[in-house]
Amino acid sequence: MDRRSFIKRAGVAGAFTVGTAPAVHAQTTVRWRLAHSFPKSLDTIYGTAETFAKLVGDMSGGKFTIQVFAAGEIVPALATLDGVQNGVIECTHTASNFFAGKDETFAFNGIPFSLNSRQMSAWMFDGNGLKLMREFYKTQGVINFPMGNTGAQMGGWYRKEIKSLEDLKGLKLRVSGLLAGEVYKRLGVVPQTIAAGDIYPSLERGTLDAVEFSGPFDDQKLGFYKVAPYYYYPGWHDGSPQLDLLVGLKAYDALSDEYKAILAAAATHAHVVMQARYDARNPTALRQLVAAGAKIQRFPQEVITAGYREAMALFDEISARNPNWKKVYEDYARFRADLNLWFSIAEASLDQFTQAQRR
Amino acid sequence: MDRRSFIKRAGVAGAFTVGTAPAVHAQTTVRWRLAHSFPKSLDTIYGTAETFAKLVGDMSGGKFTIQVFAAGEIVPALATLDGVQNGVIECTHTASNFFAGKDETFAFNGIPFSLNSRQMSAWMFDGNGLKLMREFYKTQGVINFPMGNTGAQMGGWYRKEIKSLEDLKGLKLRVSGLLAGEVYKRLGVVPQTIAAGDIYPSLERGTLDAVEFSGPFDDQKLGFYKVAPYYYYPGWHDGSPQLDLLVGLKAYDALSDEYKAILAAAATHAHVVMQARYDARNPTALRQLVAAGAKIQRFPQEVITAGYREAMALFDEISARNPNWKKVYEDYARFRADLNLWFSIAEASLDQFTQAQRR
Repeated sequence: MDRRSFIKRAGVAGAFTVGTAPAVHAQTTVRWRLAHSFPKSLDTIYGTAETFAKLVGDMSGGKFTIQVFAAGEIVPALATLDGVQNGVIECTHTASNFFAGKDETFAFNGIPFSLNSRQMSAWMFDGNGLKLMREFYKTQGVINFPMGNTGAQMGGWYRKEIKSLEDLKGLKLRVSGLLAGEVYKRLGVVPQTIAAGDIYPSLERGTLDAVEFSGPFDDQKLGFYKVAPYYYYPGWHDGSPQLDLLVGLKAYDALSDEYKAILAAAATHAHVVMQARYDARNPTALRQLVAAGAKIQRFPQEVITAGYREAMALFDEISARNPNWKKVYEDYARFRADLNLWFSIAEASLDQFTQAQRR
Repeated sequence: MDRRSFIKRAGVAGAFTVGTAPAVHAQTTVRWRLAHSFPKSLDTIYGTAETFAKLVGDMSGGKFTIQVFAAGEIVPALATLDGVQNGVIECTHTASNFFAGKDETFAFNGIPFSLNSRQMSAWMFDGNGLKLMREFYKTQGVINFPMGNTGAQMGGWYRKEIKSLEDLKGLKLRVSGLLAGEVYKRLGVVPQTIAAGDIYPSLERGTLDAVEFSGPFDDQKLGFYKVAPYYYYPGWHDGSPQLDLLVGLKAYDALSDEYKAILAAAATHAHVVMQARYDARNPTALRQLVAAGAKIQRFPQEVITAGYREAMALFDEISARNPNWKKVYEDYARFRADLNLWFSIAEASLDQFTQAQRR
């Protein structure tokens, strides 16, 4: 049976069966490849892409399949956007601020002193966030879907205690994120870019003084507490990093309306699941880290305040030179001010009370 | 063409076309009815069900349709669970604690001093929450899906200022939730059950002293600020109410695996969208309420502390007499303690700092 006659026949069958008997839902088989920017060992992030891909398969009866590859398997971790743009892969699950060197506008998934996780979802799903970011991504040949968040992270592991802003001066800190690195540089830190596997030996040797990586669940695996026991909070450098699913527009536009809807819903489901995994698993990791000798400390207030001042100055500088950034940031900043006002009332006062209880 | 021969033919076509040409995705046409427990006027809640139903339709190419009816249209607001259990409707979008009179275990979507919105999602999607609640719902002939949250609400509108716990004594308060009502009763309040439309005139006449309803966006529509201007926070009576999609097991079990996956993903998408809508829209409503004369005040600390003490005592009493509740509550309470410890570190310290800024 050729394609044309099959579809015609299916249509006839459908006309006979609407309402009671099986109808035909003709869908093209689609096979995509997703290149991840993170390794399998970071199972909370990597597993989010697997959750997403499985759900797309389940919803389409196995007709729309997405094969997930870890960082470096088919595309290098930091080249997955290029892979999508070149059509080597159809999509990537990534931290978009990896690509801020191309245009700072990529960084809105996680900037210093960002919206928190829930506020970011509000900006994306009911504010102008998704609309504005999609306008930008369209110029890149890509469509974006929010797909996970870690929530607020820790601020990093330090070999020596930080008692003042002065103590940061000259420290070699491995920190992720172009904007975070720039802010730390303005505080006197010497930001370092080091591959994950080289961090521990560098800390041990003392050629690195500190590392910002993630939160308890991820950090525990890398053993930093043994050589840099001071574990600072909060992770203001990147308040609540969102992960994104980036899909090539050519591949996306070729999908049926059903598959487009399936893709979006699967991404949102994975978005919720990733945050849930971090939230549910960080507490146990934190307890175990403390039991193993990690010293949990809050950054001195002057460090946080100086970081905030430099971050806001940097954002204004970028606004003055990058119209793509400016357009998004104006909306983002207004939304941030509005939501912080509201969250500081009911949400924060209840959180503060219940968190002070130990039951 | 009868069903059997059609499916057989479709299978042959599929074998010819895998990988390149259209394959057949045979799906029965399914038509469901959803009865809502809320009116259309509460568009943030009601609209969540519409978002859900539209997405199910979009993902199934219009084959799986869910028609949404407002509270009272085909089933009374508080009888939607019965409607699902009797098979009058296939599903409902509701606040499950409405049904706590049947068994207190229904109330875990929103109890006093609950998990916050993000923690609740963590318990549901990665902790034991969904598993435990589904065990309970199964005994009720129902399967549940988290589908929305309002976040922390306000504590209510009062005609007179509340300066102490003593000021609550004898006050007639309209409050939703069986458990919340019981806790307020132990604080000396006389809880009232009044239909939404009767609240305003009762406050105006003074036959009602106060009303707990929702948060700024919902409350603004009802105009309470004109007759009861003291607007208290936080809404500790029901820390972060989750809405649920409850589906009759008979209807659910009849779905194909694809439709089951579509149902779950659409519910999760709607779950995110509802919280986003409240978060994005509450700030403007709050500003407008303040401009119109609402006086925003925090409950006196002794009111919150006494509420907490009575809530914990009540939960222990229910544990002693209701094994369904006890099984779930033990896990819930352990999770709450763990997450509050972790959230009090990175998340809360960053939130507190950024919320104190006004930019």
